[in-house]
Amino acid sequence: MATFMDVHSGFVGVTADQLAEAHGRDLAIEEDEGVHFERAWLDPVAGKVFCLATGPTREAVMRIHARAGHPTAEVYELPVEV
Amino acid sequence: MATFMDVHSGFVGVTADQLAEAHGRDLAIEEDEGVHFERAWLDPVAGKVFCLATGPTREAVMRIHARAGHPTAEVYELPVEV
Repeated sequence: MATFMDVHSGFVGVTADQLAEAHGRDLAIEEDEGVHFERAWLDPVAGKVFCLATGPTREAVMRIHARAGHPTAEVYELPVEV
Repeated sequence: MATFMDVHSGFVGVTADQLAEAHGRDLAIEEDEGVHFERAWLDPVAGKVFCLATGPTREAVMRIHARAGHPTAEVYELPVEV
């Protein structure tokens, strides 16, 4: 199991409720790909969302996000953590 | 106290020891600005580092990173977390 950070752009002005709803759509289907989204952070001014996830592959993370309606190609595999 | 994610580029091929050493340079001086770097994650293939921090301002986070030798302008304030 690997760790991933993905980055979404364009979330300017998104609220906490909207982020929770979007994150919930990931959680509802993540098991299909063996992925788990641990946390998500939002900068509503810059419109950036960062999601920390575990899963088998980068592509598995991308497929869940795409099915949940917020695709991103910016997914980084993180073998090192301090 | 706010939460921040900063992103560094150009860390291609960096090792776990090198990341720990760089992170240690932040930790050694972070109190000067009331900042705390909680975690850092590395993708050595893409050369990206993500640091999760708390602190008073975005500028305070940037000053610590600059003094530690790894400046970045890419620091996002994260008022929303799920």
